[in-house]
Amino acid sequence: MPGLSDATRGRLLFGGDYNPEQWPEETWHEDVRLMKAAGVNSVTLGVFSWSTLEPTPGAREFGWLDTVMDLMHDHGIGVVLATPTASPPPWMGRLHPDTLPVTEDGRTEWWGGRQHFSHSSATYRRYAAAVTEDLAARYAGHPALTMWHINNEYCTFDYGDEAAAAFRRWLRARYGTLDALNDAWGTAFWSQGYDSWDGVLPPRLAHYMRNPTQVLDFRRFTSDMLLECFVAERDIVRRHTPDIPVTSNFMPLWTGQDGWRWAEEEDVVSVDLYPDPRDPLGAQSGALVQDLTRSQARGPWMLMEQAAGPVNWRGVNHPKPRGLNRLWSLQAVARGADAVCYFQWRQSRQGAEKFHSGMVSHAGEEGRTYREVRQLGAELERIAAGTAGRTVTADVAILHDWDAWWAGSQDGRLSGRVEYADVLRAWHRALWQAHLTTDFAHPEHDLTPYSVVVVPQLYSLTDTAIEGLVAHVRGGGTLVCGFQTGVADEDDRVRAGGMDHRLRELFGIRTLHEWWPLDAGETVTCEGFTASLWSEELEADGSADETVPYKGGELDGLPAVLRKGRAWYVSTLPEPEALSDLLAGIAAAAGVRPVLDGLPEQVEAVRRGEALFVLNHGREPVTVDVPGSHHDLLTGTPVTDRITLGRYGAAVLRP
Amino acid sequence: MPGLSDATRGRLLFGGDYNPEQWPEETWHEDVRLMKAAGVNSVTLGVFSWSTLEPTPGAREFGWLDTVMDLMHDHGIGVVLATPTASPPPWMGRLHPDTLPVTEDGRTEWWGGRQHFSHSSATYRRYAAAVTEDLAARYAGHPALTMWHINNEYCTFDYGDEAAAAFRRWLRARYGTLDALNDAWGTAFWSQGYDSWDGVLPPRLAHYMRNPTQVLDFRRFTSDMLLECFVAERDIVRRHTPDIPVTSNFMPLWTGQDGWRWAEEEDVVSVDLYPDPRDPLGAQSGALVQDLTRSQARGPWMLMEQAAGPVNWRGVNHPKPRGLNRLWSLQAVARGADAVCYFQWRQSRQGAEKFHSGMVSHAGEEGRTYREVRQLGAELERIAAGTAGRTVTADVAILHDWDAWWAGSQDGRLSGRVEYADVLRAWHRALWQAHLTTDFAHPEHDLTPYSVVVVPQLYSLTDTAIEGLVAHVRGGGTLVCGFQTGVADEDDRVRAGGMDHRLRELFGIRTLHEWWPLDAGETVTCEGFTASLWSEELEADGSADETVPYKGGELDGLPAVLRKGRAWYVSTLPEPEALSDLLAGIAAAAGVRPVLDGLPEQVEAVRRGEALFVLNHGREPVTVDVPGSHHDLLTGTPVTDRITLGRYGAAVLRP
Amino acid sequence: MPGLSDATRGRLLFGGDYNPEQWPEETWHEDVRLMKAAGVNSVTLGVFSWSTLEPTPGAREFGWLDTVMDLMHDHGIGVVLATPTASPPPWMGRLHPDTLPVTEDGRTEWWGGRQHFSHSSATYRRYAAAVTEDLAARYAGHPALTMWHINNEYCTFDYGDEAAAAFRRWLRARYGTLDALNDAWGTAFWSQGYDSWDGVLPPRLAHYMRNPTQVLDFRRFTSDMLLECFVAERDIVRRHTPDIPVTSNFMPLWTGQDGWRWAEEEDVVSVDLYPDPRDPLGAQSGALVQDLTRSQARGPWMLMEQAAGPVNWRGVNHPKPRGLNRLWSLQAVARGADAVCYFQWRQSRQGAEKFHSGMVSHAGEEGRTYREVRQLGAELERIAAGTAGRTVTADVAILHDWDAWWAGSQDGRLSGRVEYADVLRAWHRALWQAHLTTDFAHPEHDLTPYSVVVVPQLYSLTDTAIEGLVAHVRGGGTLVCGFQTGVADEDDRVRAGGMDHRLRELFGIRTLHEWWPLDAGETVTCEGFTASLWSEELEADGSADETVPYKGGELDGLPAVLRKGRAWYVSTLPEPEALSDLLAGIAAAAGVRPVLDGLPEQVEAVRRGEALFVLNHGREPVTVDVPGSHHDLLTGTPVTDRITLGRYGAAVLRP
Repeated sequence: MPGLSDATRGRLLFGGDYNPEQWPEETWHEDVRLMKAAGVNSVTLGVFSWSTLEPTPGAREFGWLDTVMDLMHDHGIGVVLATPTASPPPWMGRLHPDTLPVTEDGRTEWWGGRQHFSHSSATYRRYAAAVTEDLAARYAGHPALTMWHINNEYCTFDYGDEAAAAFRRWLRARYGTLDALNDAWGTAFWSQGYDSWDGVLPPRLAHYMRNPTQVLDFRRFTSDMLLECFVAERDIVRRHTPDIPVTSNFMPLWTGQDGWRWAEEEDVVSVDLYPDPRDPLGAQSGALVQDLTRSQARGPWMLMEQAAGPVNWRGVNHPKPRGLNRLWSLQAVARGADAVCYFQWRQSRQGAEKFHSGMVSHAGEEGRTYREVRQLGAELERIAAGTAGRTVTADVAILHDWDAWWAGSQDGRLSGRVEYADVLRAWHRALWQAHLTTDFAHPEHDLTPYSVVVVPQLYSLTDTAIEGLVAHVRGGGTLVCGFQTGVADEDDRVRAGGMDHRLRELFGIRTLHEWWPLDAGETVTCEGFTASLWSEELEADGSADETVPYKGGELDGLPAVLRKGRAWYVSTLPEPEALSDLLAGIAAAAGVRPVLDGLPEQVEAVRRGEALFVLNHGREPVTVDVPGSHHDLLTGTPVTDRITLGRYGAAVLRP
Repeated sequence: MPGLSDATRGRLLFGGDYNPEQWPEETWHEDVRLMKAAGVNSVTLGVFSWSTLEPTPGAREFGWLDTVMDLMHDHGIGVVLATPTASPPPWMGRLHPDTLPVTEDGRTEWWGGRQHFSHSSATYRRYAAAVTEDLAARYAGHPALTMWHINNEYCTFDYGDEAAAAFRRWLRARYGTLDALNDAWGTAFWSQGYDSWDGVLPPRLAHYMRNPTQVLDFRRFTSDMLLECFVAERDIVRRHTPDIPVTSNFMPLWTGQDGWRWAEEEDVVSVDLYPDPRDPLGAQSGALVQDLTRSQARGPWMLMEQAAGPVNWRGVNHPKPRGLNRLWSLQAVARGADAVCYFQWRQSRQGAEKFHSGMVSHAGEEGRTYREVRQLGAELERIAAGTAGRTVTADVAILHDWDAWWAGSQDGRLSGRVEYADVLRAWHRALWQAHLTTDFAHPEHDLTPYSVVVVPQLYSLTDTAIEGLVAHVRGGGTLVCGFQTGVADEDDRVRAGGMDHRLRELFGIRTLHEWWPLDAGETVTCEGFTASLWSEELEADGSADETVPYKGGELDGLPAVLRKGRAWYVSTLPEPEALSDLLAGIAAAAGVRPVLDGLPEQVEAVRRGEALFVLNHGREPVTVDVPGSHHDLLTGTPVTDRITLGRYGAAVLRP
Repeated sequence: MPGLSDATRGRLLFGGDYNPEQWPEETWHEDVRLMKAAGVNSVTLGVFSWSTLEPTPGAREFGWLDTVMDLMHDHGIGVVLATPTASPPPWMGRLHPDTLPVTEDGRTEWWGGRQHFSHSSATYRRYAAAVTEDLAARYAGHPALTMWHINNEYCTFDYGDEAAAAFRRWLRARYGTLDALNDAWGTAFWSQGYDSWDGVLPPRLAHYMRNPTQVLDFRRFTSDMLLECFVAERDIVRRHTPDIPVTSNFMPLWTGQDGWRWAEEEDVVSVDLYPDPRDPLGAQSGALVQDLTRSQARGPWMLMEQAAGPVNWRGVNHPKPRGLNRLWSLQAVARGADAVCYFQWRQSRQGAEKFHSGMVSHAGEEGRTYREVRQLGAELERIAAGTAGRTVTADVAILHDWDAWWAGSQDGRLSGRVEYADVLRAWHRALWQAHLTTDFAHPEHDLTPYSVVVVPQLYSLTDTAIEGLVAHVRGGGTLVCGFQTGVADEDDRVRAGGMDHRLRELFGIRTLHEWWPLDAGETVTCEGFTASLWSEELEADGSADETVPYKGGELDGLPAVLRKGRAWYVSTLPEPEALSDLLAGIAAAAGVRPVLDGLPEQVEAVRRGEALFVLNHGREPVTVDVPGSHHDLLTGTPVTDRITLGRYGAAVLRP
């Protein structure tokens, strides 16, 4: 199978989405000049080009793309060629209304935006396959082609009739019999027993709360339908170009795709990453996505899209202050990226995203944005030899699972304040602040590479996963579990006792009497720290080696944290410092050390292969101890024992 | 007519909804063991069992229910048997889409939740009648049967075409002629004159504010349609079992049913009651519902559903702290309940309510919840002989009317901040805090049993009701009216002067110049207290005996409160303490005393028959003066002159 | 062409909407008595009378209207006669569902409110023309008729199929070819290229952001369709009565109509004005609308609707405190109104607006509201001779453009916090607080009458408009531009550099590097003042004469305000005092002085013809210097050098 290295060939890819169809041909030559000056070596073509390629049903307009492909090749710029299938031309909806998605309350999503296709529409799939086939056939041998990009940010739902039929087929395949479905969905509750497959629907608008397993299965189905669309197009391009790797860009932590399953079908794992420049935790937010993407890729990955300046879809969209684009790009490389790309090369003058930044902003060549892009391109070239293709290793793994996310995010929960992604972020943040490099893993993955396994929250766990956790501890590993873990099985059936008995035994819990979710602004005091969001009324079974009690309130004296051997249970969400200290201590006890000792808070350090990235996320200069002799790949200067980094400063040190 | 006493036979019913179809048969035997241990003597079967009873159209699966009915009888547990019609099986919507309700903006409510039936659907009614008929026929003679429960929490709206036709029939019956409808609805405004019955619609989505009398009539119609559904099923079961009482459970203060009209059609008035355990006024909230339900029942009533722990439909769902379930259950008995029941017996493992607590929680027999339930069961047995069937008497009545609520809650009011239910709660709270036991009454009820009649707010009043208020005062009774009372007639036609002239004369008001609603956070000062929400620019006519003026602001010196003889008008909402003091003073002047003198704030006292309930709603112990010699039915110990109650403590004292 | 003076004949019109069809005939005589006592000389009849006039399709019921017209004439009260077409009778929707509008997500807007007509419906237009024709024919020669009022507050959108067809016709007329449309809409972005006119739709619900130029054109189309409806009816009444002026009432700053284009089609410009009595800036809010309406009218205008007391469509609706109705009415006359009218004469007892005040409130003749109305009527008669028909002149013009508003208000902007109307209000407020009388103008208007031209924000500008601004400065005029001006052209195509190069050159800006929108609560410091909402990273080109820098933060030292000659650019929103001082200083430098010097903050002064209006918007008395000898038209008393005004006091001074 081909992979990212077939595209990078030892370089770090640098570039972005390029949409020449929005510009007159004279601009293309200006573009190439500016690309070359900035060190751009990769562009992504054809995303959203369907109506240009196929302006009327069945037509093919490849001439302009031939020209651009040739132009790129002439200037040594590789092309990631996208299938255009994320945004069908207006004629498709006009001639084939069956291709349009329908919302859960029966409203049609019309053309005029993007992604107005039903993943379940046979008509859409037929047109998508045809244009993909012809695109692949035409450019299979083109020397500029380095990668295929299928569709874009798969993210649509459909509750319409054709999707309903597909949902029934998917459910038949999953359950075999209606009895099995009725059992899994618990349809004895509220008189929901199905007597016919024809009666099963997507979870459309209902009078009151919908069946949670129906909702859960619909999310699984949606992810699988989108994946079918991806695989269909992937297989077409693969047939034409077996040696060219294929990707499709993820949206980080987006809830609609099961990223683990998807990653298995991709040659290259790529992601779009847009932290808010104003977010004080923007760097951690980026690190989380980078760690997750690297873990999905099991090696180097591609930053397909980021913004050189502001995006345009937040309530208030801030530009990146001077230096931040460079810093966050180097962070991605530090955490395993072999490609640093943007949406998009040249900021659009028209359309819905004309205020989304580009590498060349409205201000053009003289704008600060392009000037910083040009500097970054040069720096990436400088560090490529010492970083590209190298591995990032971690002794700590965070377990993450879309299934558990979906199951735990339903209506009818005890607390609508508990958001899976927030809990995940809080725990990753604690490890990030402790300077512990962290992988992500699926709960059924092999955990033996990791000394410490952290489960922020996995509401549902399969038997296999539970046994894996138990085995991890039995095998000498350390496990730290957050609250509401192991509550349900894969059908969202609550396990007896409200938490699986194997887990309770692992932690030394006799009875989970009640969950005590906390209100907004409410905190709970534990011995040594305060906590928020959640608490639990637990009765220990006497076998725990260590407990940290709640202090005061209804839970006074009951265990907030239990440790039994190497297994820890944390029944609340400690304040950030406390959680970070707790995890740092647990890691240290397991022999896991931070990347560097004594790092100031705003400094991030990551090792990638032999390179040590030191990144100052603060606006004030900072001095960092880096014992021994290094030289900085960015500046070429030697560094002995300590280095001073300016505002948003970075160093890439090699021994 | 049969009544609640036919089911209780001197006991207090204790139990809950039981849904054995969600569990394997072995669990049923475990259930019976735990029920017996807890003193359960009543379970409600069959709510939401339609798809189990009739898995395909016309089929009947009674075997499982036979078994459970027999099992209950074998163990001396009575059965409240429910018709399953609140949640049609999926096949009904599939085969008969005409049974599905439609929202005001034309969206279908599909199956997958519950209550997805159109009250106006002939098809739905036909199927509901058929299953009710067969259920009644089968279990008419079963010895376990103690009561019928029709449907569940009737609460649906339908704006679809079949409902529109029914609405027109209902309007024809109400108005006779289109001219009368046009007059009542004031259709000369905004060119809404109807020239044909066929043009009359439910108040569907409109460009701007809808006709308020159309909306009002649609609410009346909806209540009546649901009541038709109830009566149809009631009459079927009555035909089979004339001696078995019939009920359907209300949702407290739910706006969709006219509870006064409904109660007249029921043999037993039952209610579902779920105060938030975190609500500092949860106990008062419960007391209000209990007082209202008792008044609807005109005697003992049934607490059909409460939660032993958390519910799962709030944003954050808190469990009940130790002791609270017992305390609130005893409060219900104090205020007239002869049945203390729960949704549900055993917490579900699947479905939308698996995080709604049960008497047996996920933690099972060892969980705190069941342990407290078991203790309560024993205590209810102990106090039954001294409480069941006894009467609670009150000298104060609060007037409440769904019609006035509906009429006053329309768009286009002067203040969207004035919520009828909030005003009602504020006034009930004032009386509750003054330890004055209070009934509720409809404004056209006979008011002679009451020394003091309190009208928190009745925006609309019929002539009969107004004359009743005047007669009450003329007859020596005391009347206290809150703001915005008597503004409109039963068609929501504003009475001349903005308040009926008979009321103005009663209070000594010459002119109501303007209403002055208050903003959020805004208060107004009156002599001796502050107030909020509302104020009025009133001109007195000189006949009042007493006035309390506004101080400062635009209304400086104008009357805030007027008294003319025994008639009081309060044109604003005094702060809680002030309103409580005001009402206590008025009651005292009318010779109405609190249940006990000198009660601490957190203690509630209620007399039921000869029993005196003393309830400590605080977490700190408290000592209460109870002059004379009593013994406590809960403990069997004598009590002389004073009693100390611990956290959430209670005593049931008999002389 | 006839105009407002044909209706006023030297008087100030005083009166309001009169809806006798809501009342029995005996009330009509009571009404006339009260009208005469209050000095009412004009009523508006027939708004929303369609179902009364045409109770069944094609019927005509004019008898009642004949009676009322005669009654008015008999008492010397002129009639503004309205076509009833704003609210079709229920039979229209029943028989012709094609007349009902459809929302952007496909939901029908039913009858039951008002304005439930599709502007594009041929059926609706046919019925509207027919009733207008007959109305005009019948009353063409009636002596009471003084003006025609077409429809009411045109404000509806329609996304349905007939509107879609009309939209396509409108687009064909605008663009001629699909290529031109594709170019203007930038459809190369997101694969939106149209291959057929049939594929073009209104901007209906889409999966993600819609094409902004499609949305922009749909707003233009909507305004034009509504205008077509107006013109069709206007032309009918004009044919019958060429000498009677025609109007339709605007909603101030409502976004749906291009007020400049509409005003050109009206004989009389009229407006509905409802400032919140609680708004501390209510008087400025009124002044803005009055200035805009006067500018649209290019002379005297008509205040068609205001409220004598509260409205009923806010969350909380406050009455007008004593004196405020008079004060705000005089303000309207001060700023050019020759008609002071109300919705409505007598407050309704039924329907959706029964809590909207009337000149005669529910309290009737003795109510404070009517008593104040009566006083005002007398005062308006007193000042009419010195004010009616007179001109208000201004040396300052604010440029305002609906096109720029629509273009700049799309999704996908950098800041959803920037609301065009708020920015406009902020700049008008600054001028108002500096006591500078201000006109409004369209950016392509002749600007030579104005010494100072102020552009709060015009996101889009045509080439003609840009050249007009440049010419204004070249011609010796002063120009002050706020942020985000000149960003886009008329197709919402971003101009190179993010701001048109001619404007950048005008202000001395080399590069606009980035826009820096500010978060809620965020401020930015500039030398001498703080600012909020927005900031910009600008690079000056060295040609500016003066710059005010940002202080601190990322923009430290960069120019916040630039002046090059008489051209000013303000890249942020200074706090109110600072903006007012800035504009006062700029005006003074251009030789423009306030109406009076040394005015206290709460006092407004305006000159109309020879009359000097002095208005105290405070509740405390205030003394104002008015040098020289005047007499006060309101009191008839002489005033020398200074005058003391009580709470909400006013004087109308003549030399």
